[in-house]
Parts: sequence; C-alpha cells; structure tokens
Amino acid sequence: MDSPYDSEKGGISSLVPENHPRRESLLLRERLTESMREGSVVPQGLIAHGRGECFDYLLGERTNDFAMKSINASAALLLISSHPVISVNGNMAALTARELVKLSKEIKAPLEVNLFYRNHEREVKIERTLKEAGAEEVLGVGNDASATIPELFSERRRVSPRGILVADTVFLAMEDGDRTEALTRIGKKVIAVDLNPLSRTSLKASITIVDNVIRVVPLLIKRIEELKGKGKDELVQIVNSFDNRKNLREALQFMSERLNQLALSL
Amino acid sequence: MDSPYDSEKGGISSLVPENHPRRESLLLRERLTESMREGSVVPQGLIAHGRGECFDYLLGERTNDFAMKSINASAALLLISSHPVISVNGNMAALTARELVKLSKEIKAPLEVNLFYRNHEREVKIERTLKEAGAEEVLGVGNDASATIPELFSERRRVSPRGILVADTVFLAMEDGDRTEALTRIGKKVIAVDLNPLSRTSLKASITIVDNVIRVVPLLIKRIEELKGKGKDELVQIVNSFDNRKNLREALQFMSERLNQLALSL
Repeated sequence: MDSPYDSEKGGISSLVPENHPRRESLLLRERLTESMREGSVVPQGLIAHGRGECFDYLLGERTNDFAMKSINASAALLLISSHPVISVNGNMAALTARELVKLSKEIKAPLEVNLFYRNHEREVKIERTLKEAGAEEVLGVGNDASATIPELFSERRRVSPRGILVADTVFLAMEDGDRTEALTRIGKKVIAVDLNPLSRTSLKASITIVDNVIRVVPLLIKRIEELKGKGKDELVQIVNSFDNRKNLREALQFMSERLNQLALSL
Repeated sequence: MDSPYDSEKGGISSLVPENHPRRESLLLRERLTESMREGSVVPQGLIAHGRGECFDYLLGERTNDFAMKSINASAALLLISSHPVISVNGNMAALTARELVKLSKEIKAPLEVNLFYRNHEREVKIERTLKEAGAEEVLGVGNDASATIPELFSERRRVSPRGILVADTVFLAMEDGDRTEALTRIGKKVIAVDLNPLSRTSLKASITIVDNVIRVVPLLIKRIEELKGKGKDELVQIVNSFDNRKNLREALQFMSERLNQLALSL
C-alpha cells in the first residue's frame, strides 16, 4: 500500500490479523486517528492516548482490585447523587460513546460536552457521535455553555447551567487537573477515570478509577445495577469508607511490582 | 481564543509561561503536532510520542547511569563500524534534525529516511527538514529506496542500496520491532534509542539506549568526540563488555523503584 490513509482499502483494521497480540490496541488507535481526522479529537488527544497506553501496559491491561474498589465507591456515589453529570471530551466520545449513553440513562445523568480545546465544530461533532450512539440530549454545545466555573481559566470553564454548573457529582475521564481541582474547590464531587495515578486529576478527584475508560464504564454500569437495591445508608457507608490516596498508592505499588517482575523475567 | 489552531496567534508556545513545569514537554508536543499537520509525522507518531512521555516520566526525565553505559558502548561501536547509517523517521526529524545532521557528520554516516507509514510526500518533507538542518544528502527518498531487506514485510523493507542495505551498523529510534529484528537477523548491529525497555525493538537491538532521543544524540556526539583518540582494541573491548539485557533490567528496576518511591510520597 502506498498510503495508510486510503480508506477505500479499509484502513489498518483490515490488515491486522485477528490473532495479532496488539490488535485491540491497534484498533483503538485507528478509531482515535479517524476521529481526529474528522475533527472531534485533537492531536493532543492522541498524545494523551499514547501516555494512557503506557500506563495501561503497567496495569497489565486489565481491571485490578484497586480499580474495582473505586468502581464500587463510584457506583454508590452516583446512586446517592441528586444531580450527577457525565462530562464528555473528544477521546471519550471516540472510544466509549455507546457505553456513556447507557450510563447516562442508568443514573439519569445528562451528558455534557466540555473541551479543553474548544471550538464549535468539535462540539457539534461530539454531540453527533453521542446522538448516533443513542443520546437524546447533549448539553454544553454552542450557546448552551452559557455559564462559567469560577477560578478556572481554560475553555473548560464554560459549562451548561443545566449540567455541570448545578451538578453535585461530575464523572469525567482523561482530563486536565485544573478543571478537576476547580470543580472540587466549589464543592462538587468528581469521579475521574485516569490511567495515571500521579496526574493532578487523579490526586484532586474525590474518587479516581485507575483503569482504562473502555473497561470501566461497562463495569460501572453493572455495579450500579447491583447496588440499586441497597439502602441509602449503606451506599453512604461505601462512599465514606473509600480512601482515594490509599487507592492511588496501591495502584502505584502494583505498577512498581509489575515492572520489577518484568525485569526479573528478562 | 476560539481555536488553538490559529497559528497567527503564535500557537500554544506563546501561551505557556516560561515557568510552567511542563513547558518543555508541551513545546515538544506542539512541534510534533505541527509536523503532523504539515505532513511529515503521522497520527500514530503522536500516539507513540505519548507512550514515550509516560516512560520518560518513569525515568525522571533525565539520562540515568544505564543510559550513559549504552551511550558509551554506542559511541565505541559507531567508531569501529565501517559503514554506519542513521535511519530517520518522522518523529526523529521533527524533534532532533539538527543534532542528527551533526551526528551524521561526526561519524561520516549517511542519513536515510525509512518509514513504517511510507509515502513519497512524507519522504520529501523529512528530507527537506534534514536539509534545512544542514544535511547535504539524504538517502532512501523516492526511487533511491530501490533495495529490500529480506524477511521484512512492512514498507520499511524498502531501503537505499547505498545506505541501510550495506550498513554494518544502523542507528535508529522510536521504531517497530519487526525491522530491528530483521536487521539483526541479517547480521547488522542495531543501536536503538527507545524509552520503553520492554519493546521488541529494545529487546532485539544490539545496544539499546533507554532514554529520550532529544537527550541522547548530543550526549552521543560528545562521547564520540571523547573516544576518538582511543585505539581500536579498547573500543572493541567497550563494545564486547556491554550486556544489553542486563542494561534493560537495570532500566526496568529503576522505573520500578521510582514508582515505589512516588507511592510512598503520596
């Protein structure tokens, strides 16, 4: 082939054999690359995805105990929240639109587009992706982002007055730390999915799920379904007994031990 | 700003304060992003860069002892090689063109463009980047890539009959493992710069420098200058006493210990 961009040839997915050990990873890269080409993902989103791939490799590319604890606490928190909101960026929409729509319906949380690299064309494309995945309404697009978050200076400060502004809990992933910090500073709970346990987002969030968002959302939905029958007191207890710093330390120590084991196997 | 793409505003570099802790990293991302936009870097190159950023963070974003040992052995190997060649891809050209040209002149090694995602336009753009950085001739562009490497099936099998084909030592960075393996299988020495000590490239190379190519090339040039006065026997001894697997284990154990220390500091 002369160019991998010739989509008439079906792209790289038609070239990667089913048994390729990195097939899943290669297909995700292609999905993001295509989303960048059509405008909903920015180049910086590809670099961020690459960083995530490295951390995911250190996790063994699976959901570990510490992530399950976070998912459990997140499910409980979302169930006791009166106004949860799911914040969506380009990478999330490209990778998990269908699952996010399902989560949105499961907990009656609106989906809101919120972008570090904001422009109206991107907003509309992400909205379209979510609606094609089954969403009925998407907040934060165009003039709907008419409110602002105090003490935040990136474009992410522009939010919907019906969504993030009035949310008590915000679910987000692959985010910049400034916004997470600003949200918690004004009293909101933040559930952050982040493969990097050392990021400012991870450190500032109320609950950090150190795992890949692709694995997390289906597991979170399942856990929410399981916890729906629990009483509020029990759910509050689950949330209160969760220690985010301890959880992040466990994730780091897991990664450290994995590298050590890999070193011994060389 | 409405769009970070409005280059009339000077891009993100004019917005990142001099004291921003991630300034260097942000500027590199921008350089790569610009190179992708003008066509010499592919989207997959941004994802690869992101993976590298994560591993570099685990290295403490500095050149460690194990990397200095690799650089020392690489300098010695390049000096005793009769036909060394520097293989250049899009990311390398975007990040280190000037230094690669200097290295090329220092050891009289031709620069050859060799791309996984090959197309003529990219080849010409990379050639232009290298010539603007002072290169006189660049191999592997267009019809010059008229030879092939056996047992290699990606576009990287196409090489110059005056360069990689007849090289005894190939210097490369940020590469796919298939090509490194194919080169070593036909008897060539490969010096690979790779931030990931577990990559197939790292495992298959003769000498792997686990470090950022931006830091490596100037240090390599300096070490070559220092070793030029040494006798051949001494240089051969330096090369023969280098153990790549041991070096990779040291890099992994360093990363493991760093994660453990970071966990304790949370």
